[in-house]
Amino acid sequence: MKRIEIQEANRAAVAAIQQSQPVLTGIGIAGEVVPRMRKNLLLHAGPPITWPRMSGPMRGAVMGALVYEGLAKTPAEAEKLAASGEVAFEPWHEHDGVGPMAGVATASMPVWIVEDKAAKRRTFCTLNEGLGKVLRYGAYSDEVMVRLRWMRDVLGPVLREALALRPEINLKALIAQALQMGDEVHNRNRAATSLLFRDLAPAILRTRAKNEDQLKVLEFLNANDHTFLNLSMPAAKIMLQAAEWREGSTIVTTMTRNGTDFGIRIAGLRDRWFTAPANIVKGLLFPGFTAQDCNPDIGDSAITETCGLGGFSMAAAPAIVKFVGGSVADAMTYTQKMYEITETESEAFQIPPLDFRGSPLGIDLLKVCETGILPQINTGIAHREAGIGQVGAGLVTPPMACFEDALAAYVETYCPKD
Amino acid sequence: MKRIEIQEANRAAVAAIQQSQPVLTGIGIAGEVVPRMRKNLLLHAGPPITWPRMSGPMRGAVMGALVYEGLAKTPAEAEKLAASGEVAFEPWHEHDGVGPMAGVATASMPVWIVEDKAAKRRTFCTLNEGLGKVLRYGAYSDEVMVRLRWMRDVLGPVLREALALRPEINLKALIAQALQMGDEVHNRNRAATSLLFRDLAPAILRTRAKNEDQLKVLEFLNANDHTFLNLSMPAAKIMLQAAEWREGSTIVTTMTRNGTDFGIRIAGLRDRWFTAPANIVKGLLFPGFTAQDCNPDIGDSAITETCGLGGFSMAAAPAIVKFVGGSVADAMTYTQKMYEITETESEAFQIPPLDFRGSPLGIDLLKVCETGILPQINTGIAHREAGIGQVGAGLVTPPMACFEDALAAYVETYCPKD
Repeated sequence: MKRIEIQEANRAAVAAIQQSQPVLTGIGIAGEVVPRMRKNLLLHAGPPITWPRMSGPMRGAVMGALVYEGLAKTPAEAEKLAASGEVAFEPWHEHDGVGPMAGVATASMPVWIVEDKAAKRRTFCTLNEGLGKVLRYGAYSDEVMVRLRWMRDVLGPVLREALALRPEINLKALIAQALQMGDEVHNRNRAATSLLFRDLAPAILRTRAKNEDQLKVLEFLNANDHTFLNLSMPAAKIMLQAAEWREGSTIVTTMTRNGTDFGIRIAGLRDRWFTAPANIVKGLLFPGFTAQDCNPDIGDSAITETCGLGGFSMAAAPAIVKFVGGSVADAMTYTQKMYEITETESEAFQIPPLDFRGSPLGIDLLKVCETGILPQINTGIAHREAGIGQVGAGLVTPPMACFEDALAAYVETYCPKD
Repeated sequence: MKRIEIQEANRAAVAAIQQSQPVLTGIGIAGEVVPRMRKNLLLHAGPPITWPRMSGPMRGAVMGALVYEGLAKTPAEAEKLAASGEVAFEPWHEHDGVGPMAGVATASMPVWIVEDKAAKRRTFCTLNEGLGKVLRYGAYSDEVMVRLRWMRDVLGPVLREALALRPEINLKALIAQALQMGDEVHNRNRAATSLLFRDLAPAILRTRAKNEDQLKVLEFLNANDHTFLNLSMPAAKIMLQAAEWREGSTIVTTMTRNGTDFGIRIAGLRDRWFTAPANIVKGLLFPGFTAQDCNPDIGDSAITETCGLGGFSMAAAPAIVKFVGGSVADAMTYTQKMYEITETESEAFQIPPLDFRGSPLGIDLLKVCETGILPQINTGIAHREAGIGQVGAGLVTPPMACFEDALAAYVETYCPKD
């Protein structure tokens, strides 16, 4: 493989990402719409992992999910079941989906359906539970169960009917707007959630649901600025799928973490995972917590950075430094540096403070290895023990070892010695 | 009056502005809540003006308002009535209120009520009509009348009931949030309108209105990103009222235009107007219009700049240059320059791209005259003929003569030659 051939492959890969058009088309039940989903399968964030190696928050989410799904009666029973080998664990990323933080999903959960109609692809993500004690951060108390059941029985069906009553929502345009409004759609989703709320509220009023349920749905969506995160993630995922399995390309198609390992995948290396231990996130902790409480980096949400959003677009969202730490100048610098490891600039996503420059798009494995500059990710921080929840938010990078291993595999695959 | 005494008066004036706490408390009927409002009185934007000197869009709005109020049957009859001297014209600013563009209001129109409870003050503004053919830009066709009647009969009552069902809305906090989301709340109100919509939607569902009317209200609010302009204006007005009538102070308490004249008022000079011909706005015109179509600067909306928002906070809203013209660097420069003519920085309104510096607050007449730097305003542009509407948006400054005349009056009042 010559350098010029790699460049051509990468250009084609990012052109495909640019052309992808994610739209929100509906809501389904995971067991009915997610490929190869089944009752005793739990999907999770990050690269593949077995129960013994799972971190505290991932275990907590698994225990809660088994109780929610009716596969276990108590968290203790769930823990035994999880360790027994009688339930399977597979990454969301291998089922056309993504999940924030622990990202654990079961067959009866409602999921957003995002489509790229020209490409005939669909991606999926659960609905965001809100803040506080939530499954995705490893909490599994009764309040978590009650909320998940309400989401299954009321929120999902009402949103499903509302979406069917209105035109599909163009997520690419909505994200582009949100970047003009100070979001980077990973840890700041206030504008995107507001725009989504404006789009959905009239349709929710037109459903056959009781006024009381319509009201609860509006109040639930309004109470949580991260509602849109569970849409920015599958939108980024579907755009990146356009670059997957591209012969010879060194573009990164996946970056994700399961709370133990960080994993990446490369377009030209298809579905091979390259993993290394996940880093600890540095950031701002909620009162009462210390660095000892923090679990290593977790969640599929780094799919936003992989698509040029999140940490890559922090210059569009200076207000985020109040949440993840650092200064406004740092936020500008993070975005500027990411142009050094990316193939191109997004045609859709513009960064107003950088004179509307397109966000840095298409992480190139070769550029990361050549420059030593690691992708910049911003993220929430989970407590390292099961059952507790979020302790803060901050900044993190992948371990360089993922990229070194991927480069070695690329050389082995495409540049035989003889 | 010594310089140090002026400085003390100015410090007290801006401290009072900083302490003001505007909250949205309800909706009323202008004739019932606006001081000294009566059936044959039309309120208008800008300093006082008589019918013969009114510009085209102001005349168009007056004609439409007379038909809407039932004081005339046709626009032609309205024109005769307006010229007859049988209806009175007075500035909104002399009735504790403000109106965007022509700003024409009659007794039966619904108005937002903004309060500063500690100061026991109230300000008022009509509800925003949306885009296209609207009264505030001088249009008076049937479609304008139908919309105004629906606003009186449905929108106003539904919003009034919704506001009564929920806690008052803290406008200062909402504006502060919107500045973190790329608004400057004069010509960019998308974030503020979205946040307001999120606050109001659940309460609208809780009203006794028919589902069909609730739906129409949500759709009307959602269709118009400028809904919040009619709240940022009375919020700015009530904050500036805290500085009015302050012995010796050179802080500007009002900047406004009626489409013919630009007028300012100064804290230490009480209710005296200092006027000069309004400038032409330079900006981006809608397709099909030329500079010849543009009316001179019009509207009370420059109250936002007087309060450190709008053009003074353009650095917070870089995306606005796509609407009013110029580059992102220009937007940064406009805000930076305004610190040279203002007394202090807002404690509430922060500008993220300038490292959360407070917005420039408290225009000082002396600093304007000493530096020759004029306040920077961004604004919509009305067609110069009655009945047409908006033709674009852009940037403008007050005429220096207003400030020169005010300075002369200040010297005469406070620095007698004896």
